Amino acid sequence: MNLSFALVIGSGLLAIGYGIYMIRSILSLSAGTAEMQKIASAIQEGASAYLNRQYQVITIVGIAIFALLTWVLGWSVSIGFLIGAVLSGVAGYVGMYISVRANVRTTEAAKGGLEPALDVAFKSGAITGMLVVGLGLIGLTVYYLYLKMSGYADRALLEPLVALGFGASLISIFARLGGGIFTKGADVGADLVGKIEAGIPEDDPRNAAVIADNVGDNVGDCAGMAADLFETYVVTIVGTMLLAGVLFVGDLAPLMDTMMFYPLAIGGICTLASIFGTYFVKLGRTRDIMAALYQGSFATAVFSAFGIGFVTNAMIGFNTTFVIEGTTFTGLNIFYCALTGLVVTGLIMKITEYYTLGKYRPVKSIADASTTGHGTNIIQGIAVSMEATALPVLVVCGAILVSYANGHLYGVAVAATTMLALAGMIVALDAYGPVTDNAGGIAEMAHLPKEVRETTDLLDAVGNTTKAVTKGYAIASAGLAALVLFSAFLEDLQHYFPKVVTQFELQNPYVVVGLFIGGLLPYLFGALSMMAVGRAAGSVVVEVRRQFREIKGLMEGTAKPDYGRAVDLLTKSAIKEMIAPSLLPVLAPVVVFFVIDYVAGRSEAFATLGSMLLGIVVTGLFVGLSMTSGGGAWDNAKKRIEEGYHGGKGSEAHKAAVTGDTVGDPYKDTAGPAINPMIKIANIVALLLLAMLARGA
Amino acid sequence: MNLSFALVIGSGLLAIGYGIYMIRSILSLSAGTAEMQKIASAIQEGASAYLNRQYQVITIVGIAIFALLTWVLGWSVSIGFLIGAVLSGVAGYVGMYISVRANVRTTEAAKGGLEPALDVAFKSGAITGMLVVGLGLIGLTVYYLYLKMSGYADRALLEPLVALGFGASLISIFARLGGGIFTKGADVGADLVGKIEAGIPEDDPRNAAVIADNVGDNVGDCAGMAADLFETYVVTIVGTMLLAGVLFVGDLAPLMDTMMFYPLAIGGICTLASIFGTYFVKLGRTRDIMAALYQGSFATAVFSAFGIGFVTNAMIGFNTTFVIEGTTFTGLNIFYCALTGLVVTGLIMKITEYYTLGKYRPVKSIADASTTGHGTNIIQGIAVSMEATALPVLVVCGAILVSYANGHLYGVAVAATTMLALAGMIVALDAYGPVTDNAGGIAEMAHLPKEVRETTDLLDAVGNTTKAVTKGYAIASAGLAALVLFSAFLEDLQHYFPKVVTQFELQNPYVVVGLFIGGLLPYLFGALSMMAVGRAAGSVVVEVRRQFREIKGLMEGTAKPDYGRAVDLLTKSAIKEMIAPSLLPVLAPVVVFFVIDYVAGRSEAFATLGSMLLGIVVTGLFVGLSMTSGGGAWDNAKKRIEEGYHGGKGSEAHKAAVTGDTVGDPYKDTAGPAINPMIKIANIVALLLLAMLARGA
Repeated sequence: MNLSFALVIGSGLLAIGYGIYMIRSILSLSAGTAEMQKIASAIQEGASAYLNRQYQVITIVGIAIFALLTWVLGWSVSIGFLIGAVLSGVAGYVGMYISVRANVRTTEAAKGGLEPALDVAFKSGAITGMLVVGLGLIGLTVYYLYLKMSGYADRALLEPLVALGFGASLISIFARLGGGIFTKGADVGADLVGKIEAGIPEDDPRNAAVIADNVGDNVGDCAGMAADLFETYVVTIVGTMLLAGVLFVGDLAPLMDTMMFYPLAIGGICTLASIFGTYFVKLGRTRDIMAALYQGSFATAVFSAFGIGFVTNAMIGFNTTFVIEGTTFTGLNIFYCALTGLVVTGLIMKITEYYTLGKYRPVKSIADASTTGHGTNIIQGIAVSMEATALPVLVVCGAILVSYANGHLYGVAVAATTMLALAGMIVALDAYGPVTDNAGGIAEMAHLPKEVRETTDLLDAVGNTTKAVTKGYAIASAGLAALVLFSAFLEDLQHYFPKVVTQFELQNPYVVVGLFIGGLLPYLFGALSMMAVGRAAGSVVVEVRRQFREIKGLMEGTAKPDYGRAVDLLTKSAIKEMIAPSLLPVLAPVVVFFVIDYVAGRSEAFATLGSMLLGIVVTGLFVGLSMTSGGGAWDNAKKRIEEGYHGGKGSEAHKAAVTGDTVGDPYKDTAGPAINPMIKIANIVALLLLAMLARGA
Repeated sequence: MNLSFALVIGSGLLAIGYGIYMIRSILSLSAGTAEMQKIASAIQEGASAYLNRQYQVITIVGIAIFALLTWVLGWSVSIGFLIGAVLSGVAGYVGMYISVRANVRTTEAAKGGLEPALDVAFKSGAITGMLVVGLGLIGLTVYYLYLKMSGYADRALLEPLVALGFGASLISIFARLGGGIFTKGADVGADLVGKIEAGIPEDDPRNAAVIADNVGDNVGDCAGMAADLFETYVVTIVGTMLLAGVLFVGDLAPLMDTMMFYPLAIGGICTLASIFGTYFVKLGRTRDIMAALYQGSFATAVFSAFGIGFVTNAMIGFNTTFVIEGTTFTGLNIFYCALTGLVVTGLIMKITEYYTLGKYRPVKSIADASTTGHGTNIIQGIAVSMEATALPVLVVCGAILVSYANGHLYGVAVAATTMLALAGMIVALDAYGPVTDNAGGIAEMAHLPKEVRETTDLLDAVGNTTKAVTKGYAIASAGLAALVLFSAFLEDLQHYFPKVVTQFELQNPYVVVGLFIGGLLPYLFGALSMMAVGRAAGSVVVEVRRQFREIKGLMEGTAKPDYGRAVDLLTKSAIKEMIAPSLLPVLAPVVVFFVIDYVAGRSEAFATLGSMLLGIVVTGLFVGLSMTSGGGAWDNAKKRIEEGYHGGKGSEAHKAAVTGDTVGDPYKDTAGPAINPMIKIANIVALLLLAMLARGA
C-alpha cells in the first residue's frame, strides 16, 4: 500500500513538475514589442491587484470559519479546511500568473501563424490543468496518509477530508463569483458603451474598459475556473472516499482501505494519462483547432481507460466479488463504472459542441433569429439554452443507472471520480480560452497587422466552445457527485443520530418542502449574481462615458483613457457583490435546519435538510446547464454573423447578436458556472452541520 | 345530503345565470361607430375562425383518446373525459365570444370616462369567470351524483372523475399553447416589424398584424386562460375528492361521503361569494383601478371565509374529531386549512403585484437598466424573473406545512381547493385584461380622440398585473395540487399493485433519475413553446414586410393592409406548432414508465414514474413563476418608460424596453402559463396509466 501511495503522490509531483517545466518554457519565449509588453503588464498588474484584494477578503471569511471549525470539530478538521482553501487559492493564483504572461506570448507567436500560437496558448492552459490535479492529489493523499499514520480512523479520518473539500469549495465559489462579476461587468460594460453606443470595435484601445475586460478573462475565466475545478476534483474524490468508508463495513470491512484509496489511484493514473495526452494536441493537415484539442482529450481518455483497467485489476482484481445489499458485484463491474465516467465525459463534450458550435442547428437558429431583431435573438437564445439541458440530463440519468447497477452507490461515485480525474486535460482546454481571448485584445490594442488578429480570432472561437464544455462537464459531474454526497449525508445521519428516524419518502411533506426550498436556491443565486453583473456593468458604462466626455482627444486617438480607474472600480464592485450570493449556500442549509427544527422537530428538520440538498441539484442542473450552453451559443451566433452571414459586422442582425452575446456573458461566465460549487457547498455544509450537531448533542 | 347537492348545483346554475344576464346586459350596450364595428367584427371573425380550427384539431386527438379510454377503462371513464373536454372547450369559447364583443363596447364606454369603461371590461371578465366555475361545479357534481346513483362506488366512482379532469386538462393545454403561440406570434411579430423596424406606433392600422394581435388576445389570454383555469379548478377538486376517497377508509369510512362532497361545497359557497364580490368592484374617489379590483377580491375572500366556516361547521362540525395516522384533527382544523388557501391567494396576489407593478423596485430596476441598452434590460429582466420565484415558493412551502399539520394530506388538498374556489373572481380579473387591451387597439385603429386611448391605457396597465396575478396563482396552486395528485398516485399504486413494493426514498437512484427526468420536462416544454413563438413571429415579420413593400400607398395611409392573411398565417402556424409540446406531458410518463419497466423492472418503473411527477413540479414551479412574473415586469417596465421616465417614448431606453417586452411576451403568455396544465396532465396521465395497467395485469 505504501508503494501505491508513493505512486499517487509521484503522479501529483509529476504534474506539478510538468507545470513548472512548462512555465519556464513559456516564460523563455519572446513577449513581443515594447508596446505589447506595456499592455500586457497593465493586464498583469490589474489581475494581481484584483486577486490580492479578493484573497484578502476571502481570508477574513476563512479565518472566521477556521476558528469555528477548530472550536467545534478540532484541529484536524480545521487544518483540513485550511489545506483545501490554500491549495484552491494557489491553483487559481498560479493559473492567473501564467495566463497573464502567456497571452502576450501567444500574440507574439501568432505572428508566426496558427501552429505556434496554439502551442503557447494550449501549454499555458495545460499548466493550470496540471496544477489543479497535481495540487489536489498531493493535498488529499498526503493529508489522508498523515491522518492515518496519526491513528485517525473511521469518522475521525473522514471529517477532516470533508473539511478539506469545504475549504476548496468556499474559495472556489468566491473566486468564481468575484471573478465572474469582474470579468462580465467589464465585458458587458465595454460592449455596451463601446460596440453598441460609440460604435467602436471590440478591444478598441480608446475604450477605458478594455484592459479591465482582459484582466477579467484572467481572474474570472482562468483563476476562478481553476479554483472551481480544483473544488470539483477534490470534493468528488472526498465524496467517493467517504462513501467507501461508510459502505465497506461489516463483512466488507477488509475492502475498505482499498476502496477508499481507489479514487486516489484513479486520480493518479489519469493525471499521467493527461500529461501524455497533452503531447497529442497537434494541428493536423486540416488545420482544425477543435480536432487538435480533441485529439489530446481522446488520447487522454484512451490512456486513462487502459490505466484504470490495470489499476483496478491490480488493486481490486477483476474477479473479486463482493455483496452490497444482496447484489453481487465484481472488480470488473467497478471498472465498468469508471468507463461510464469516461463515456459521460465524451458525450457531454459532444453535446455541448452541438449546442455551441456555429456549424450546427442551435447556433444557426440564433443567428437566423437575429435578422428579425434583438427580441427574437433573445427568445431563440433562451429557447436554445433551455433545450440544451435535455440531452446532458438524460446522459447523467443513464450514467446513474448504469453505474448503480454495476457498483451500487459506490459505482456512481466511481463514475463521477473518473469523470473528474480527466480534469487535468479538460482544464487545459478551458484555460486555453482566456489566453487566446487576451491575445486577440493585445493584438488589437498594439495595432498589430490584421493577420495576427485573425489568427487569434480563430483560436478564440474554439475557446468559446471549450469553455462551455468544461462548464457543462463540471455541472454534469455535480449531478453525479450530488447523489454521492447525498448518500454520504444519509449514512452520516444514521451514524450520528441512530435514534432519529427520518423519512425520506416523497410523500412526507417536509421532503417536498425541502425539494422546493432547495430548488429555490439556484434561482435566487442566479438572480443575485445576474443583478451583480448588471450593476457592475452599469458602473463601467457610466465611467467610460465620463472618460469619453472629459478626456479631450480620446476619441481622436491623441489621448489615452484612464484604464486603471475602470479596473479599480470593478475590483471594488466585484468584491462587494460576491459576498451575499456566496454566503447563500453556506447559510441556507443552517437556517433551514434550525427553523424547521424549532417549528416541527428534529426528524422533520433532517428530512427537509436532506431533500433540500437534492432540490438544489434538481434545479441547479438545469439552471447551470442552460446558462453555460446558452451563453456559448449566443457568443458563437454573434461570431457566425461576424464571419459574414446575415449581413456580417455592422448589420442590424449583428447588433441583435451583440445584444444576445451581452446577455449570454453573465449566463455563461458568472451565474451558470458558479452553480457547480454552490451545489457542493450546500452539501458539504450539511455534512459538517451533522458532525457539529453530533458533538453538541 | 340531497339538499346539499341541490345547493351546490344551484350555486353553479346561479353563476351561469349571472353570466347569461351579464352577456345580455353587455350586448345591449352601444358598439360605437361603423368604423369601430368594422374593426371589431374583423377581430370577431378571426377569433371564431381560429377557435373553430383549433377545436377541430383537438377533436381529432380527443376522439383517439376517447376511443382508447372506452376500450380499456369503459364508458363511465370515457364519458367523464368527454364531459371535461366539452365543458373546458365551452368555457373557452364563451369567454372568447363575450370578450370580442365587450372590447368595442369598452372603447365606446371609454368615451364617457374611466368608470363606465371599467364597468364593461370587468363585467365581461366576470362572465368568463362565472362560466368557468359554474360549468365546473355543475359538470362535476352532476356526474358524481349520476355515478353514485348508478351504483358506482370506490375506485369505480373515482376513475371517471379523474378522466373528467383529464379531458379538461387536455383541452386546456392545447388551448393555452395554441392560443399562446397565436397571440404572441402576432404580438412579437407586430412589435418587431412595426414599432422597432418601421417606427410606427403599437396598434397602428397600417401594420397588417394588428388585427391578428387583437385576435390573439382573445383566443390566447381569454379563451386559453379560461380553459386553463377550468382545468385547474376541476382537477384540484377531483384530486381532493380522490384523496378523501382513499384516506377516509376503515374506521374513518363514515366520514368518506362528507369529505368527498366537502370540496364541492367549498366550490359552491365560494361561487356565491364571488358573485357578491363582483358588486364590490367600484372605482373609489382615488380613481385607483387596482384598488377597485382588489376591493372585489377582498370582499369575495371575506364572504368565502364566513361561508366556508358555516359550511364546515354544518357538514363536518368544528368539534368533530378524527384520527389520521395517529394524529387527531377536528373540523376546526379543516377550516384552518381552507383559511390557509385564502391567505395564500392573498399573498400570491401581493407578491405578484410587487414584482410586476411599475411603482416597486423590480420593474423600476428593469426600466433603469434599459438606459444602458438592450443587453442590460434583458439581464435585469431575467434576474428579476428568477428572483420573483422566491417568495411565492416560500408561501407554498408554508401553506403545505400549515395545512398538513391541520389536516394531513387532506388538509393540503382543502387548502388547494379553497384557493381555486376563488377562481370565479380571479378569472374575472384576468379576462378583463384582453378586453382592455383590445379596446385600446380599436381606439387607435378607429382614430378616436387621444383621451379614449388614454383611458383604455390606464385600464390596460392594470391588466398586465392582474394577468400576471392569475398565472402566479394558477402555478402556485399547482404546487399544492401536485402534492395532492402525487399522494393520490401513491394510494392508487398501493391499491392496484399491493404486491409491488416501491421505494420512494430519495436514496433510490430511480427516484433521483425520476426527479431529473421530471425536472427536464418543463425546460423542454418551455424551449419548444418559445421556439414555436419565435417561428410564428418570424413568419409574421416576413408577411408584414412583404405587405409594406408590395401594397402601394400603405405607409401613406391611402391603402389598407391585408389583415386576413396575417390571421390565416398565424392560425395555421399556431395549430401546427401546438401539437408537439402539448403531447409531451401526455406521452412522457408513458414512455418513461415502459422504458424503465423494460430495462429494470416494474417496481423501479413505478419509482421513476412517481418521482418524475414531483420532478415536474419542482422545476415547473420555478420555470412557470419566473416566466409569468418576469414577463409582466418587462411589460410594465416598458409602460413606465412610456409614462415619461428615462426619456419616454422613442428614447433609446424605450427601444431597449420594447425588446424586453418582446422577450417577455412568450414568457408570460405562452410558455409560462402552459406549465400549469402541463404539470396536471402528467399527473393525471400517470393516474390513468395505473388504472390501465391494473386492468391489463
